Amino acid sequence: MKPKFEPSESILSGETTDIYFAHTIEILRHEGLNPVATMEVFSTRAGILCGMEEVKALLYRVLPEDNREVWALAEGETIEGKEVVLRITAPYQSYGLHETVIDGILSHCSGWATAARECVDAAQGIPIISFGVRHVHPAIAGVMDYAAMVGGCAGCSSIVGAKLAGVEPAGTMPHALIIIMGDTVKATIAFDKYMPPEVPRTSLVDTFKDEAEEALRVAQALGERLNGVRLDTPGERGRVTPDLVKEVRARLDLAGFKKVSIFVSGGIDPERIKQFVETGAPVDGFGVGSHISGAKPIDFTADLHEIEGKPIAKRGRIPGITPNPRFKRIM
Amino acid sequence: MKPKFEPSESILSGETTDIYFAHTIEILRHEGLNPVATMEVFSTRAGILCGMEEVKALLYRVLPEDNREVWALAEGETIEGKEVVLRITAPYQSYGLHETVIDGILSHCSGWATAARECVDAAQGIPIISFGVRHVHPAIAGVMDYAAMVGGCAGCSSIVGAKLAGVEPAGTMPHALIIIMGDTVKATIAFDKYMPPEVPRTSLVDTFKDEAEEALRVAQALGERLNGVRLDTPGERGRVTPDLVKEVRARLDLAGFKKVSIFVSGGIDPERIKQFVETGAPVDGFGVGSHISGAKPIDFTADLHEIEGKPIAKRGRIPGITPNPRFKRIM
Amino acid sequence: MKPKFEPSESILSGETTDIYFAHTIEILRHEGLNPVATMEVFSTRAGILCGMEEVKALLYRVLPEDNREVWALAEGETIEGKEVVLRITAPYQSYGLHETVIDGILSHCSGWATAARECVDAAQGIPIISFGVRHVHPAIAGVMDYAAMVGGCAGCSSIVGAKLAGVEPAGTMPHALIIIMGDTVKATIAFDKYMPPEVPRTSLVDTFKDEAEEALRVAQALGERLNGVRLDTPGERGRVTPDLVKEVRARLDLAGFKKVSIFVSGGIDPERIKQFVETGAPVDGFGVGSHISGAKPIDFTADLHEIEGKPIAKRGRIPGITPNPRFKRIM
Amino acid sequence: MKPKFEPSESILSGETTDIYFAHTIEILRHEGLNPVATMEVFSTRAGILCGMEEVKALLYRVLPEDNREVWALAEGETIEGKEVVLRITAPYQSYGLHETVIDGILSHCSGWATAARECVDAAQGIPIISFGVRHVHPAIAGVMDYAAMVGGCAGCSSIVGAKLAGVEPAGTMPHALIIIMGDTVKATIAFDKYMPPEVPRTSLVDTFKDEAEEALRVAQALGERLNGVRLDTPGERGRVTPDLVKEVRARLDLAGFKKVSIFVSGGIDPERIKQFVETGAPVDGFGVGSHISGAKPIDFTADLHEIEGKPIAKRGRIPGITPNPRFKRIM
Amino acid sequence: MKPKFEPSESILSGETTDIYFAHTIEILRHEGLNPVATMEVFSTRAGILCGMEEVKALLYRVLPEDNREVWALAEGETIEGKEVVLRITAPYQSYGLHETVIDGILSHCSGWATAARECVDAAQGIPIISFGVRHVHPAIAGVMDYAAMVGGCAGCSSIVGAKLAGVEPAGTMPHALIIIMGDTVKATIAFDKYMPPEVPRTSLVDTFKDEAEEALRVAQALGERLNGVRLDTPGERGRVTPDLVKEVRARLDLAGFKKVSIFVSGGIDPERIKQFVETGAPVDGFGVGSHISGAKPIDFTADLHEIEGKPIAKRGRIPGITPNPRFKRIM
Amino acid sequence: MKPKFEPSESILSGETTDIYFAHTIEILRHEGLNPVATMEVFSTRAGILCGMEEVKALLYRVLPEDNREVWALAEGETIEGKEVVLRITAPYQSYGLHETVIDGILSHCSGWATAARECVDAAQGIPIISFGVRHVHPAIAGVMDYAAMVGGCAGCSSIVGAKLAGVEPAGTMPHALIIIMGDTVKATIAFDKYMPPEVPRTSLVDTFKDEAEEALRVAQALGERLNGVRLDTPGERGRVTPDLVKEVRARLDLAGFKKVSIFVSGGIDPERIKQFVETGAPVDGFGVGSHISGAKPIDFTADLHEIEGKPIAKRGRIPGITPNPRFKRIM
Repeated sequence: MKPKFEPSESILSGETTDIYFAHTIEILRHEGLNPVATMEVFSTRAGILCGMEEVKALLYRVLPEDNREVWALAEGETIEGKEVVLRITAPYQSYGLHETVIDGILSHCSGWATAARECVDAAQGIPIISFGVRHVHPAIAGVMDYAAMVGGCAGCSSIVGAKLAGVEPAGTMPHALIIIMGDTVKATIAFDKYMPPEVPRTSLVDTFKDEAEEALRVAQALGERLNGVRLDTPGERGRVTPDLVKEVRARLDLAGFKKVSIFVSGGIDPERIKQFVETGAPVDGFGVGSHISGAKPIDFTADLHEIEGKPIAKRGRIPGITPNPRFKRIM
Repeated sequence: MKPKFEPSESILSGETTDIYFAHTIEILRHEGLNPVATMEVFSTRAGILCGMEEVKALLYRVLPEDNREVWALAEGETIEGKEVVLRITAPYQSYGLHETVIDGILSHCSGWATAARECVDAAQGIPIISFGVRHVHPAIAGVMDYAAMVGGCAGCSSIVGAKLAGVEPAGTMPHALIIIMGDTVKATIAFDKYMPPEVPRTSLVDTFKDEAEEALRVAQALGERLNGVRLDTPGERGRVTPDLVKEVRARLDLAGFKKVSIFVSGGIDPERIKQFVETGAPVDGFGVGSHISGAKPIDFTADLHEIEGKPIAKRGRIPGITPNPRFKRIM
Repeated sequence: MKPKFEPSESILSGETTDIYFAHTIEILRHEGLNPVATMEVFSTRAGILCGMEEVKALLYRVLPEDNREVWALAEGETIEGKEVVLRITAPYQSYGLHETVIDGILSHCSGWATAARECVDAAQGIPIISFGVRHVHPAIAGVMDYAAMVGGCAGCSSIVGAKLAGVEPAGTMPHALIIIMGDTVKATIAFDKYMPPEVPRTSLVDTFKDEAEEALRVAQALGERLNGVRLDTPGERGRVTPDLVKEVRARLDLAGFKKVSIFVSGGIDPERIKQFVETGAPVDGFGVGSHISGAKPIDFTADLHEIEGKPIAKRGRIPGITPNPRFKRIM
Repeated sequence: MKPKFEPSESILSGETTDIYFAHTIEILRHEGLNPVATMEVFSTRAGILCGMEEVKALLYRVLPEDNREVWALAEGETIEGKEVVLRITAPYQSYGLHETVIDGILSHCSGWATAARECVDAAQGIPIISFGVRHVHPAIAGVMDYAAMVGGCAGCSSIVGAKLAGVEPAGTMPHALIIIMGDTVKATIAFDKYMPPEVPRTSLVDTFKDEAEEALRVAQALGERLNGVRLDTPGERGRVTPDLVKEVRARLDLAGFKKVSIFVSGGIDPERIKQFVETGAPVDGFGVGSHISGAKPIDFTADLHEIEGKPIAKRGRIPGITPNPRFKRIM
Repeated sequence: MKPKFEPSESILSGETTDIYFAHTIEILRHEGLNPVATMEVFSTRAGILCGMEEVKALLYRVLPEDNREVWALAEGETIEGKEVVLRITAPYQSYGLHETVIDGILSHCSGWATAARECVDAAQGIPIISFGVRHVHPAIAGVMDYAAMVGGCAGCSSIVGAKLAGVEPAGTMPHALIIIMGDTVKATIAFDKYMPPEVPRTSLVDTFKDEAEEALRVAQALGERLNGVRLDTPGERGRVTPDLVKEVRARLDLAGFKKVSIFVSGGIDPERIKQFVETGAPVDGFGVGSHISGAKPIDFTADLHEIEGKPIAKRGRIPGITPNPRFKRIM
Repeated sequence: MKPKFEPSESILSGETTDIYFAHTIEILRHEGLNPVATMEVFSTRAGILCGMEEVKALLYRVLPEDNREVWALAEGETIEGKEVVLRITAPYQSYGLHETVIDGILSHCSGWATAARECVDAAQGIPIISFGVRHVHPAIAGVMDYAAMVGGCAGCSSIVGAKLAGVEPAGTMPHALIIIMGDTVKATIAFDKYMPPEVPRTSLVDTFKDEAEEALRVAQALGERLNGVRLDTPGERGRVTPDLVKEVRARLDLAGFKKVSIFVSGGIDPERIKQFVETGAPVDGFGVGSHISGAKPIDFTADLHEIEGKPIAKRGRIPGITPNPRFKRIM
């Protein structure tokens, strides 16, 4: 999974930055000041580092090739609170404008990746699919799902995210298809008829009828071709419970459909995943939405620690380089 | 504040959507099914509605002009939990692909606007500036700051967000400028020298020296031209406290600088704003970062409620139109 | 509701009493001691008084007609904590053996009546049916349901309890009938066919299919003759929620069955009743089980306060008569 | 302890059952339906199973000898939450009426036995006597005390309960005897004079004087014939404390009465028993009242799982037999 | 109550001060610096001001009569948190050594007076006697009891404290007297025989026998001469409860001793006083020990705010005089 | 550390005692009663025993040399809750008056020593200096600081306490000195000039400027002669944080002042000490104020347990000697 990130025009031009960095560069130009400065970026809490690949793509574009030194941790590494994850040494004017963007990419992406990892850890081997693109702005649909994959998800539902992560997008069928077709079995048969063979046949079984009854109906209709059923019982009906999964499994098995998988979605978070796992509910995959996509970013902060090789720092920070033995030089 | 939103190519093409809506459209086309369907979108919790202008721009592009009816609440309105905010009636194939994007824009933008409003309400008239662009991905810097303005902020720091909201970006000076110039007074004088007159002279006074001492130094250096000072004491030094504001105010007043404003930033949220307000700390403006920019989206959900005029709904929802007396027809 | 209580042989003989009261009577007889003694009975906490009618029936049998004075509060009255509810003045040997039984009847019956009242108060006018006989020993099925009626229930499910309370027993149909008949509609039609006309036709609609679907099926099968449906969704399926009631109501109304009532049962207690009431769920009746039948008894305690007209009391109690202005003399 | 249970007429006739089971049997008779059905009974929480002997006595009377198969756990066994404790296979009409009663006996008796076991476990070998008959209806005095014995109590105070459990009833003397005799020593001497030698001489020492003083007085009066003293200090005087027991023990020992036992009663529950045990208070026996007699029943529920050998179940339950390796066939 | 405080030699010599103030005076003398300085003293939390009389006595001794100005709040006033209670303007060398002592006296005395006031407020008119001298060092026995009186106590038990407050010391009799005399009645008669008539006859009635029994015995022994009884039941016996007071009252009244007062002691604090008051227990006086005597001091802090008339302050404090409209000039 | 305690006149005369002990002695003299009595003193909670040396000094003065036996635990020993720490056997009139004083000394001193030990334990080897004399009455300044030393402090700030403990008083410089001198560096130079060489040069660095800046200024001014800096940041500025200590350490080290120690004061308690220790802040000493000096006394209580060799006790206590294997005979 080596995505190709390319900084957009609005990023490169500084449009997406805090205005005062634009002012700063302007003042320094007037003053003729462009010292080699060392900036360090650190996180405020522990988590999974993500966004570094996109930051690297930006730095490649802006740092002068002959006067730069960049050390960093790698995409997907586990980081501690207050750990320095990136150190840039270069003429300040070349990158000062981009402090906002560097912090922002790392903050948001690490927040998503960390939330995904919480689900993955809770699930103890059961695959997690990132399903949350519908609760964030489409402009970040791709990076969000990419970050979820960095955090350990087995798949994601957005086309743009899957492309970025280099996988096929994952999905079953929405309630809308079934409502328009008027019946779950009819919708499932149509899905089976028109979808290419590599798309798994997973039927959503809570739209019109009892989940257990509907699961048996679609299983009988598709026979061996049915890969799985998805349970997405709404909150108004008590959401999917571990007992419901056990019952659907038992009724499918009793009817001979032991190979049909059961996927669970709807308000899933690590707490509820743990309940399914601890009560032994036979879940074959979880779809997780806003726990990942709406995760709080992990705030990253950048500080200057050396100017022309001399240690310096604002009050509250330690002057000079902060050593990190896990660093690799990347530029 | 009437921004001009234009849906991007990747949104229009369906790239940023859940794959299963693409599949659904494909299946319905094969089946020759394109009923007039009514979809309603509702929130999961109360807040400030935002994103509707951007959604409208999308709907204008995709719905057939002669066969559409759209009712909605307006940008910035206060909404209840489970309130329906948008109702679309049109041939399903024209908009079904975009359910993901419609939900996502409303969810994310309403989350930001609502968090901004919490700060505005807590501040009881003291202006709030959105300062959080550095903790989110640059691709949404603009809409985030725009949403913060919809929520009631008096300004925002990103260039792209200010442009979208039709205002000038707000900012003072970063620690980086001061560290490179080596002294707060020197940096403030340079700022004053090169910045156009309409940019307010607000000096950041916690970089190298005690805040109260530095505030007096810059006031003495710039005299009448100084508009304000910003206090941004880091967590390692106990953050800005109400007592610090009172002390700086008292020392400035004692020295005759009664017109110099005091801005406060650094980990500000409604809880801390309340402390400043309740203890009577003379703050002239708050800069709020990740409380707004990292706000949890408000999940919005879309449901089909009528097909060709007949009430229908999935289990857990009520078939037929949900009346909302506050609706205005927008298309 | 004036039940006819008759003390059983085992009560009169003292078999159900604490052995030490039997010993006490034996010793006093040997000693030739039979003073006129005044015993007072008080509760440990507030509630609804119940059991007094049964206690009166006992006292009529054992107290000497010409040497007795009994004051009491009436069945169903609201009592305070530590309030004296009964005062007996008579020769001690005539009633000393029965202290255990008098306390026990009042304790258990008042516990049930009080719990019933909690549900009645929470329901704000919606009828409560006592459904809990299956969770207590059959020997008290009757008095338990009688006490629930004293507490304000509109009906009860046990035959013996209804008889004691002078009403018709209330019930719908059990899951067993439907499972044996194999289908809810079939069972409902059979019920309608064989039951006398005064028995309401209330169908249980959660056995095999989705509750909303099944409600419509039985409504279509029985037409005008259907009185109501009962929702009893098990805990494994998230229990009955206010949203489910609203949805079933909406779907029945949409199909023209506005007169069909909705009854709710399954783990109902005052807390949950409040949720239904506060969210405006259109419930027509609640069946309450173990919250009433398994209610903690309200401990009642008896003390001697006068011997031959002289005030006396054990340590911790006040010697002499405790006045209660609400007392009525009953013997 | 093998009690002889005999179902009462009102149980056999169905009077104590829920009305809808009577209706069910009536309908099935009209329909000519009497399939061999398998019913399983399970608990909702863990505890000590009790009531099975009484249920067996009922089943012997109602099930057809040549077409029945009953598997069960034994009286007094420890059970898990949701564990199946009884499985009946027989023509449904023979036992369907009795579902209420079977659940009720097991629920109530297991509730008492479980509460008794909690006390026994907390007491770590110190005997527990069931003293709570005065806080429940006399109709269940016997089964309650019997269940307390199944749960591990060393004795019980009701005559009927002791008979059922095959032991002698346990008791000391009530406050009433002492108040009528006017003095604890006088009452104790009278008790000693008239009671048969096998009844232990245990004097209640908190009626008129300080417990420690009174304990010494009765010890001096009865000498070697005194078996023990009972402390029952009322709540108004701070109840019996561990320190009081230690002091009474010390004062009795100092006066040479090392063989006199100390019994404690009054609001005793597992929490307080633990305090006595953990602080090393030399208690020789606890009398426990409403913690046992007013214990919440453990709800038991019955489900049909097979009809004529075919797996079936209502929604929420798993069709077919639930295996329990601890089952013994009892019929 | 105008006590005559006289600073001790060790206070005047500076022995009880922090060493660094001695160093400071020494340095300033070497440097020839003795500016007129203004010091303000403020509390950290709200309460009752006490110690000001003793501080005044010290200032009278050390400040130069012709160059001093002192403003203050008065002994016993209610103060707010962070309220300035004392402002001294004088040559610094005259009082700088005593900053420690000034803070210390105010802190400790205000702590005691405030705790006393909490009891007085809770008691709603029932007198509070300060009984806590036994839990503090004897060197402060006097000032502690004096401060308790300032806080509103009606009396105190130490001889030295009563003298300072200008009242007679209050006391009943200790357990030691009764144990040595061997009997409460004997001890009470001896007390009555040898004590001067102005000492109230209050007997302690919990030493050997039940409190109610003993109260009646001493009342019968002393007749009209008995003023009251004191209940001091130890924690091992459940302490004095509101019910015990009610019972002793009832038994005394029943026996005709309506004029005998009841005093309560033993672990009394505002929480327990409230319980007695709210339950209507007829208490005639409370003896309060360590709640008052062991009260946390209210920290007072001193700051220099002007040097030779010029505003100055350390970081964190506001330079210049802090106005307090409630100030009176006292020197 | 063997201090020489000498009971004051007011203690010996009984002035600081509860009045009723004076009454008791008077009555016993009239009655001619002076039995040999055994009194035991026990604590109410666990802690560090302190005050025993002062109590011994009193007992030496008052007990008859030829008729006394005293057993005790030693100053500084760890004691359990309810442990007997002192047993006196002597004619009662010789010591009965002093029960108040004996309890009081042990209660107050053990309270201080125990609080000091909590700090010492939390600090894991970093020295604790008792700095709290300013928050208690000067009359106990000495014993308080002495008790803090018994509890494990490495030094104390009061002159009288240090003398009692046999050490040099510890201190740096107060804010007052710096405010009067007008500058920290100036004050530090004056301190260095006039103080004898054995007084450590520790400069207080938070008065006018940023702590880190000021620390470097004084280090540069005094060079090798500077022993340490003290951080005492006020609450208004967020108090001293572990991060501040780390930063000051780093900046001093970077400038070559590795030998300059860092002391921390201001609201320090065990909780905050733990934070410094756990986050690895390089603190060289803590100054602790009111956590020690305002510590709640540990209540000690005295009881008579034998009169003329016969076991006796009040209700609630065990008659006779309480054995304590750790006792040593001290008289």
